[in-house]
Amino acid sequence: MKMSNMLINTLREVPKEAELPSHQLMLRAGMMKKMASGIYNFMPLGLRVLKKIENIVREEMDNAGAQEFLASAVIPAELWKESGRWDVFGPEMFKLKDRNEREFCLGPTHEEVFTDIARNEINTYKQLPLNLYQIQTKYRDERRPRFGVMRSREFIMKDAYSFDKDNEGLDVAYNKMHEAYENIFDRCGLEYSCVEADSGAMGGAGSAEFMVKSEFGEDEIVFCSSCEYAANMEKAPSTAEISEKEDMKELNKIATPDVRTIDDLVSFFKTTSKKFAKTIIYEADEKVVAVMVRGDREVNEVKVKNAIGGAVDFEMASEAIVRKATNAEIGFAGPIDLKADVLLVDEEVKNMYNFIVGGNDTGYHYENVNYGRDFEGKVGDFRNVIEGDKCPKCGAPLIIARGIEVGHIFKLGTKYSESMGAKFIDEDGEAKPLVMGCYGIGINRTMAAIIEQNYDENGIMWPLSVAPYSVVVIPAVHKDEEQMRIAEDIYNKLRAEGIEVVLDDRKERAGVKFKDADLIGIPVRITVGKKIKDGEVEFKLRNNEDLEVIKIEEVICKVKEVLKK
Amino acid sequence: MKMSNMLINTLREVPKEAELPSHQLMLRAGMMKKMASGIYNFMPLGLRVLKKIENIVREEMDNAGAQEFLASAVIPAELWKESGRWDVFGPEMFKLKDRNEREFCLGPTHEEVFTDIARNEINTYKQLPLNLYQIQTKYRDERRPRFGVMRSREFIMKDAYSFDKDNEGLDVAYNKMHEAYENIFDRCGLEYSCVEADSGAMGGAGSAEFMVKSEFGEDEIVFCSSCEYAANMEKAPSTAEISEKEDMKELNKIATPDVRTIDDLVSFFKTTSKKFAKTIIYEADEKVVAVMVRGDREVNEVKVKNAIGGAVDFEMASEAIVRKATNAEIGFAGPIDLKADVLLVDEEVKNMYNFIVGGNDTGYHYENVNYGRDFEGKVGDFRNVIEGDKCPKCGAPLIIARGIEVGHIFKLGTKYSESMGAKFIDEDGEAKPLVMGCYGIGINRTMAAIIEQNYDENGIMWPLSVAPYSVVVIPAVHKDEEQMRIAEDIYNKLRAEGIEVVLDDRKERAGVKFKDADLIGIPVRITVGKKIKDGEVEFKLRNNEDLEVIKIEEVICKVKEVLKK
Repeated sequence: MKMSNMLINTLREVPKEAELPSHQLMLRAGMMKKMASGIYNFMPLGLRVLKKIENIVREEMDNAGAQEFLASAVIPAELWKESGRWDVFGPEMFKLKDRNEREFCLGPTHEEVFTDIARNEINTYKQLPLNLYQIQTKYRDERRPRFGVMRSREFIMKDAYSFDKDNEGLDVAYNKMHEAYENIFDRCGLEYSCVEADSGAMGGAGSAEFMVKSEFGEDEIVFCSSCEYAANMEKAPSTAEISEKEDMKELNKIATPDVRTIDDLVSFFKTTSKKFAKTIIYEADEKVVAVMVRGDREVNEVKVKNAIGGAVDFEMASEAIVRKATNAEIGFAGPIDLKADVLLVDEEVKNMYNFIVGGNDTGYHYENVNYGRDFEGKVGDFRNVIEGDKCPKCGAPLIIARGIEVGHIFKLGTKYSESMGAKFIDEDGEAKPLVMGCYGIGINRTMAAIIEQNYDENGIMWPLSVAPYSVVVIPAVHKDEEQMRIAEDIYNKLRAEGIEVVLDDRKERAGVKFKDADLIGIPVRITVGKKIKDGEVEFKLRNNEDLEVIKIEEVICKVKEVLKK
Repeated sequence: MKMSNMLINTLREVPKEAELPSHQLMLRAGMMKKMASGIYNFMPLGLRVLKKIENIVREEMDNAGAQEFLASAVIPAELWKESGRWDVFGPEMFKLKDRNEREFCLGPTHEEVFTDIARNEINTYKQLPLNLYQIQTKYRDERRPRFGVMRSREFIMKDAYSFDKDNEGLDVAYNKMHEAYENIFDRCGLEYSCVEADSGAMGGAGSAEFMVKSEFGEDEIVFCSSCEYAANMEKAPSTAEISEKEDMKELNKIATPDVRTIDDLVSFFKTTSKKFAKTIIYEADEKVVAVMVRGDREVNEVKVKNAIGGAVDFEMASEAIVRKATNAEIGFAGPIDLKADVLLVDEEVKNMYNFIVGGNDTGYHYENVNYGRDFEGKVGDFRNVIEGDKCPKCGAPLIIARGIEVGHIFKLGTKYSESMGAKFIDEDGEAKPLVMGCYGIGINRTMAAIIEQNYDENGIMWPLSVAPYSVVVIPAVHKDEEQMRIAEDIYNKLRAEGIEVVLDDRKERAGVKFKDADLIGIPVRITVGKKIKDGEVEFKLRNNEDLEVIKIEEVICKVKEVLKK
């Protein structure tokens, strides 16, 4: 394509609203434009990248024996009511009514739809195994859409659903998808890790996330410094630190005026934060849930939610609720005489001796508190891993890094097939629920993740496999007819070889063209300038500072050689 | 692909809800499944056809110099309020609100979005001409979704928008699209006509529809029996029949008890229906609109709507409204003393003499009525063409046929660019509104139209260009190892040639496999049966009854030869 005919609107300045490099660069390179909060239109250059990623995904899914399908984005409410998720999604689900007041949603995911298809279409074990996938637009009304397509309200997703007759079949399907995902992300040129994950609102038995390491990632990933272990922070079990055994001392209520934070307590009591247990109060679907963790720990809200059997609305309690539960101002919550529906006690707290907690009385704390004697609750792992915690597999210290979730594979088991009655007749003549898996890849987010791992101060550096074009041919002086002629000739020859090439024939200075080529991130640049008098042109790769001067007649071979790698 | 691994659910019976052959066959061949009224999920076989049509469209659009783009399906209300169409679409538009109560719709079309893009991205004439297209899902909450994907509530559309600096540029863009559309529908194997059309709610200056002739088409098309003239019924101007001149007689009110219909009148007055003028009463956005046409004519509601400047709600008036307007029971409406906001008089009625109309009094009619003397209104062409009317181009008799609209091209002019302020700086330094065109193709409807023109009693007969697979290889007896081995060998060799082939390795009788192959509509069938003992197999085309016996080693050449045609 000739760039004079293309819609190109690169920006020199960094758009104010964009914080992440990928978000900034997608806007600056004119790959997409914002239409509303969390909703983007894809411009021609951006769409080419998106389609390349889609095609890589499609090829690998087909190779893995999955069949492409296309479900509607508009889904009848009944299916969600059957599975029990109409309310689970809460305000994140876009809901609408048709002219006859029938309720629908814009699908945030498609388990219900595919389970419905399966129960209608699959009758016998002879039809199994089956894996159906689609590349389709999903909708989630995020509370805080941000970071461009990283957390948007409309996004393209590849979602696949496998159907098997038993768990062994599911394992095979799950492993096939695991392998297909590795191929996909390898081909996209990404560095990633596969980590154990929490399966959240999707339900199910086991799941893993494909995380692209990036300092700007929204998720925290926990790695072992020694073995292969890796997990999502939400999921990663924390190994409890064992406190040294002490004899229980007498419980003592102490006046602690104006001592509210852990730091205040540390200086007041002249001890470490490990001697305190903090009590955090949440509202979960109108229940008051109190959680105790050691003073230096953070509550892991996903573990808490799982412990109480899930909650649609889950947030830190308001001041009014805290006052009601503790009978005190904020900063003095503790387990003794607390009015909460549930008290969750982290196992580390259970194992502490003679520790300090809030007094449920403004200006007071208790010291020499001991679990069992002074209070009781539901004990479990309710804390986040911190760096240095022990690996649950090998015991070596854990490391924490940030990552971007680009793919997620789940073993759903029979959660949906049971609630929605999707059964098949097995070889023994019995009706059994289908054993399901589901497998997602965020296409737009993968595009952003590729940028996060491939950019410099001048712009994007696309891997060849997903670059919008492989080669740009730039005549340095557009008024120089000979340069233009040779540039156009090289362009035509490359096209004839089936190479995706653009000719920057715009009436712009060479500097502008170089800047745009670098910003857009085209892997190979050929500049036709003054050296044509010696029969030579400049050859440069986007990811390499070196500039090579080569003979005009060598260009095609040179490009083919580079693209082959 | 091996059919044992495919999700195939063909039906032998015709589904009750389906009237049209294409609808019946798409359901019977398992191409799609209904999820809700007017909303379908595409199964793997159907999606393959859809993708092939999409790819033909994409290639021809790219060849025509258009650039692919992807806009969101969810569009902020503000854009529609700016163009003035938020209310025009009425209940046909799916509307929704996000968690912050901001209004959106699911785009029924994208003029507003693309005009918005254009006003942000196009600054100068140097960027023109430009043609942006997308292949994207649209939503229309049809009052009566029916005929499968012919009139559905969710559908895939290719919509393109051209931007030019003047009308000459628009003409060039429009003609390029006209040509691209011919290529597209030719490649889809369709017989179609391009007809003049009404531009309806889209606004604009000129438009044409690509209509596929089909006895089940929803639209009526008017053709000239002699010249090239063709138009949509909605748009086709009717040439008025001139009544023979008479002297005006005295107006006379006559008791006509129980005479309500034109047939009643014809027998009561012993004359032809051409001597009557009927008065039809409509409600248009709460206005009462009366329309008079000759007794043997039908009102053309599109012409009426255009005459009153458009209406969101437009329907036949309720009995209560008719009673109020006429002061009489239904069946006695007429122009004299009528209480209507607008009276539209068809030009044929204006030219009649001494005719009969309703008396606006139950049981009475007027005779010897004459326009001008007895009543007046807004005169125009408000009637449908009928067969035998004169061609507006050459005067020969017109013919009426039914058709399916698969494509539509519009000259929008500056309608949207003016209302939304999409301007560019021209060479003379002046800011001018962009001159726009828009161009649509219904992808799903094209698929259905192809079936309407290509089926027989056994199923679909896909043209090669859009067939889900080109070849099916059928081992006649699945238990015969030698047949299976040879079938699989042919299948593998065809695949190696890049031919889209399926092997029907299901444990089914040959008859079932033949029936499915015919129903699904695979163009080439190779049957590996008893004749392998002579080194032969059967070769059959779907659109030909002849069965050829050929040597096994000739199969690949034979298939390649057929596919080349």
